[in-house]
Amino acid sequence: MKTHTRVAIIQMRSDLDKYANLARAKELIAKAASDRAELIGLPEMFNCLGSYDQMFGSAEKIPGDTTNWISELAREYRVYIHGGSIYEKIENSDRVYNTSVIVAPSGDIVAKYQKIHLFDVELPNEFSSCESKWVAPGENVVTLETLFGTIGLSICYDLRFPELFRQLADKGAQLIFVPSAFRSTTGSAHWEVLLRSRAIENQAYVLAPNQWGEHQGEMSHYGNSMIVNPWGEIIARAGSESDSILAVDVNLEDLERIRSQLPALKHRRIHSS
Amino acid sequence: MKTHTRVAIIQMRSDLDKYANLARAKELIAKAASDRAELIGLPEMFNCLGSYDQMFGSAEKIPGDTTNWISELAREYRVYIHGGSIYEKIENSDRVYNTSVIVAPSGDIVAKYQKIHLFDVELPNEFSSCESKWVAPGENVVTLETLFGTIGLSICYDLRFPELFRQLADKGAQLIFVPSAFRSTTGSAHWEVLLRSRAIENQAYVLAPNQWGEHQGEMSHYGNSMIVNPWGEIIARAGSESDSILAVDVNLEDLERIRSQLPALKHRRIHSS
Repeated sequence: MKTHTRVAIIQMRSDLDKYANLARAKELIAKAASDRAELIGLPEMFNCLGSYDQMFGSAEKIPGDTTNWISELAREYRVYIHGGSIYEKIENSDRVYNTSVIVAPSGDIVAKYQKIHLFDVELPNEFSSCESKWVAPGENVVTLETLFGTIGLSICYDLRFPELFRQLADKGAQLIFVPSAFRSTTGSAHWEVLLRSRAIENQAYVLAPNQWGEHQGEMSHYGNSMIVNPWGEIIARAGSESDSILAVDVNLEDLERIRSQLPALKHRRIHSS
Repeated sequence: MKTHTRVAIIQMRSDLDKYANLARAKELIAKAASDRAELIGLPEMFNCLGSYDQMFGSAEKIPGDTTNWISELAREYRVYIHGGSIYEKIENSDRVYNTSVIVAPSGDIVAKYQKIHLFDVELPNEFSSCESKWVAPGENVVTLETLFGTIGLSICYDLRFPELFRQLADKGAQLIFVPSAFRSTTGSAHWEVLLRSRAIENQAYVLAPNQWGEHQGEMSHYGNSMIVNPWGEIIARAGSESDSILAVDVNLEDLERIRSQLPALKHRRIHSS
């Protein structure tokens, strides 16, 4: 086990042009890799961001064009890449999955997570969203053991559900990804608090690359990508008006010290089914 | 059901002199009642705060002196009183419970909760605590239906365990009390974030009266008592250097609007056993 690992997350503003999005993501990944990052995370829907019907048309099989592209980059830069999420085609279904993968430096897909909690929300005068019309919910809680520690996976709206993060902690998660396209309204109200709370209560690093910017005058994403340490401190934070790379040295010795001094994870007395 | 209710919480600095603590609590309760509060909450160990062995000696039966005193005040001022917590004697045991009660204006004890999660923590150069040496953990998740809405009960260190608050939400909790003697070190790091997160994820009012001040040079409590609304906004907050009364108008119509617009509680897909 490596106790010190350099991890980077990428904030970007994807739109409907998949090839432009991938080209921009490649530039940012190359830059993060040149800064010695060994594990690099992208935001939700990094390969296509727009309205649900527009994104629906971008769905691919996995493996497919976008994950093959991730595999090439992982091999080229010898890094792990967490592909925030893309829409994944489902055989014989009129819905897709909202899916993230982790690709190893070998180019192999070593983990795959399908978003469990779907964003069906109606805020008058702000926005309405019915993700479940287009997306089928995933069923599986996913962690991956790596030489950097155990990685737990979630996507965006999942952040509101502490029980998912408890199950990730039960499976040993030390680094938890929350790739997002979190809106500005709910982002300014809830993003920082929920990310810090998940880090504090699970004593884990939380890595949250977000989308930023306006989309077709219809939606605005909050940016403020964030990395939080297991004590709940924000150790890196982006603004809300530009692409950004946040890189930190994750320190599992710090994490284990916190877990041993304040052993809240061992004090749990109510367990999920 | 009353949709608008005036609720007050009391921040104080209790010490080992039980009768002085009760006298001070009575002054503050009288003041809150004269400000039209209908439900008034006290902090953890409001009747005696010191080292564990000192507090152990303060344990009483329930009903007993302190709860009889609460009953008298509830009758006198025609209010509900949530008695943050006191140590409760257990027959034939060398430990006590850390117990809160709710007393109705009739003087009757209508709810009783025994702290489930015990504070066994060792932070070098800060403090160490082994509550479980003196206190036995409670086993029951407790809510109370009232004309003000459904009240959920927790105490201090319970705040770190989101699964308890999920069970309170499952039982319909709309107002959740977190009476505390939260320390300054962990308070400045975690108190606000965790209180706001419990309010946001459970879309409930969170009412958190805390102790403040130094105790025998051995421990320092964080104050910063807080009331958070179901959108996660801090609607009342005390400082850290004085007794305080925080009073707000709880609005269950606001709460229901938030729950219907952002129906995250209905979107849960992983449930506790």
